[in-house]
Amino acid sequence: MTLKEMDQNYVLQTYARNYVNFVKGENSILYDEDGKDYVDFGSGIAVCSVGHGNPRLAKAICDQVSNITHISNLYLIEPQARLAKRLAELSGIDAVTFFANSGAEANEGAIKMARKYGEVEGEVKRYKIITLEHSFHGRTITALKATGQESMHNYFGPFPDGFVYAKNIADIYNHIDDHTVAVMIELVQGEGGVQPMQKQEVQALASELKKRDILLIVDEVQTGIYRTGELLASNLYEITPDIITLAKGLGGGVPIGAIMTTHKEILKTGEHGSTFGGNYLSTRAALEVLSILEEHKNSGELDHIMIMFEERLKEIADKYSNLFEKEVGVGFMRGLRVKEGRDAGEIINAAFDNRVIVLKAGRNTVRFLPVLTMTKEEMLLGFERFESALSSL
Amino acid sequence: MTLKEMDQNYVLQTYARNYVNFVKGENSILYDEDGKDYVDFGSGIAVCSVGHGNPRLAKAICDQVSNITHISNLYLIEPQARLAKRLAELSGIDAVTFFANSGAEANEGAIKMARKYGEVEGEVKRYKIITLEHSFHGRTITALKATGQESMHNYFGPFPDGFVYAKNIADIYNHIDDHTVAVMIELVQGEGGVQPMQKQEVQALASELKKRDILLIVDEVQTGIYRTGELLASNLYEITPDIITLAKGLGGGVPIGAIMTTHKEILKTGEHGSTFGGNYLSTRAALEVLSILEEHKNSGELDHIMIMFEERLKEIADKYSNLFEKEVGVGFMRGLRVKEGRDAGEIINAAFDNRVIVLKAGRNTVRFLPVLTMTKEEMLLGFERFESALSSL
Ligand SMILES: Cc1ncc(COP(=O)(O)O)c(C=O)c1O
Ligand SMILES: Cc1ncc(COP(=O)(O)O)c(C=O)c1O
Repeated sequence: MTLKEMDQNYVLQTYARNYVNFVKGENSILYDEDGKDYVDFGSGIAVCSVGHGNPRLAKAICDQVSNITHISNLYLIEPQARLAKRLAELSGIDAVTFFANSGAEANEGAIKMARKYGEVEGEVKRYKIITLEHSFHGRTITALKATGQESMHNYFGPFPDGFVYAKNIADIYNHIDDHTVAVMIELVQGEGGVQPMQKQEVQALASELKKRDILLIVDEVQTGIYRTGELLASNLYEITPDIITLAKGLGGGVPIGAIMTTHKEILKTGEHGSTFGGNYLSTRAALEVLSILEEHKNSGELDHIMIMFEERLKEIADKYSNLFEKEVGVGFMRGLRVKEGRDAGEIINAAFDNRVIVLKAGRNTVRFLPVLTMTKEEMLLGFERFESALSSL
Repeated sequence: MTLKEMDQNYVLQTYARNYVNFVKGENSILYDEDGKDYVDFGSGIAVCSVGHGNPRLAKAICDQVSNITHISNLYLIEPQARLAKRLAELSGIDAVTFFANSGAEANEGAIKMARKYGEVEGEVKRYKIITLEHSFHGRTITALKATGQESMHNYFGPFPDGFVYAKNIADIYNHIDDHTVAVMIELVQGEGGVQPMQKQEVQALASELKKRDILLIVDEVQTGIYRTGELLASNLYEITPDIITLAKGLGGGVPIGAIMTTHKEILKTGEHGSTFGGNYLSTRAALEVLSILEEHKNSGELDHIMIMFEERLKEIADKYSNLFEKEVGVGFMRGLRVKEGRDAGEIINAAFDNRVIVLKAGRNTVRFLPVLTMTKEEMLLGFERFESALSSL
């Protein structure tokens, strides 16, 4: 049986798979079983923040799993406490953290917190949460319903009530009523097509919501952990949300989710929990990821490579104006908006044939989510290949 | 700042923590920072199936994270395909698998599958799922609602409709109507108090449901992965459910969840997904866990130690009949039912003071979930300490 047959016979087929078999990774480079190298501009959809096979992260993980991988949350877990402290310090947000195992789980926890707030604070019970069209918040039933895409609301009902969708930030105000307890947004929509929100609009929203005692939940599952150049996109936008969710880049590939909240007693003992959440493995890995990235940021290297990347991408958008409308995005969450009549899928496939991995986002955006520790050489090689692909189209 | 203060200041306080600091583990033994050893009869609530610091598992993980920890599910992931195949082969169930990151996420996926089935199969739309009182299915909003415990249904509403609770297996039949699409049960309730279902009753239920085209979902998050002596409790009960969920013991401490289903095309491309689910790290770890445990089972050692453990526990139940009513459970999912008027919490604390870790389950059960690779020496040391604790009460 080939591996492809094995996958098709035994794995539930919910992904549109490409059957290349990657067997080794080194920072931004992946090698398939024939030894062919690919430049990875996708990093597992923003997960491999410190690159593939990062030796410092690998060492921390090896060290931890040789000692203790997991105990229950009934006992202190030292790296969990340290990670929670580190997140508060690095973000400058005076928050406590709960640890989960994915972005969807983090958002479920955030929604639970908001609804608890709506039950115990204020005069009437508030439960409605406003989210944005084109958002993506995950695949659990409630996170799906929070996702502002009609096509996601089939088959799996009854879904929970209480989600309301706004067209954009300005439209959020139109949907607020006496039962609104929270607004949940991505600062840069990822799956929705690499769509940054406007900073002033977001700041105005944040202060208006504060006045009305409505919680602001920022889903930083994709934007968090230096993806936009700062630890949090909330730092870049200079806002202090009530609740922030994290996942993807935090563990450098180890499954982890996190919910930071400034409402330090919003959930009490027994009101939330997770078997794996916050265990030694995932929190030790995340601590190492944060150390690596903090150094990278402080040295100026992260900003430097992000700026070079943006410049190259702008050049490409100009040079291939037959294919692209413009360059969009922030930091290492970037896209090329494909011209009406041209197909992002075709471009992505051509790039793959030239051994550079890029992703699709939204209806027609070619998305770039490079490894945050990408070197200049890797970047240049990737763009060289990407241009070869574009020239062939 | 002490570690305790760090935890209390920066981690959302949803767990009743014991502030011992474990720094090293060796199979069933945990060591705190003062070098004191504890016998772990809880294994992180059934997670550390192959023990703490298992060298074979550690080596597999180290090897994997030095190469590739994670890529996206848009590409083949070899250990994921192999793990799915292995689960089908070892269980003898002709199923496909979807990979998630926790028990709650696995159950969310199972519920999605059932509801999709209810929409596309049959004449009327079916959406109701019957679960049992005292069940536990996880902490996401829909999994909480599936959990048959009133106290779990506060604060976080609106919950999704469509869950119905039966008192026990016999009572399930009373709740079936035209809109019932599935029944979801644990074969041995874990959190509910170590409560095994009766085999004939379960088999009769399984065949009645099949006749009526109602799906049987078995939540094996706790019972799965040799916890009851067989790969699955479904193997022990000799049934073939439509959907089986797994988590806890599967990764040996690495966060992972899985949904096995015999309905191989129930979800199509794009209808479910997970960023981390099924990545190299978690599936490589799980493959190694299964290898270790399969060998342990085939050598006869697993059955041998389980039998010895049960015998010792029965002796203790008899000897300390002032404290215990009886011994309950299956395999390495065992409990001592505490007498009316005595307190399980007090016994668990006394055990901890004597450096043996046992857990609470349900209202008044002392629960034992030992490491599956526990040695006889570890077992004897643990029981010696447990008896010292009991004698002091
Ligand atoms: C903004 C955002 N939120 C939530 C999620 C869901 O995360 P996960 O797949 O880890 O559940 C994603 C995944 O793409 C995301 O981009
Ligand atoms: C039977 C059962 N299902 C589901 C869960 C939830 O698993 P998790 O904590 O990994 O989400 C548990 C956890 O204790 C469980 O025992």
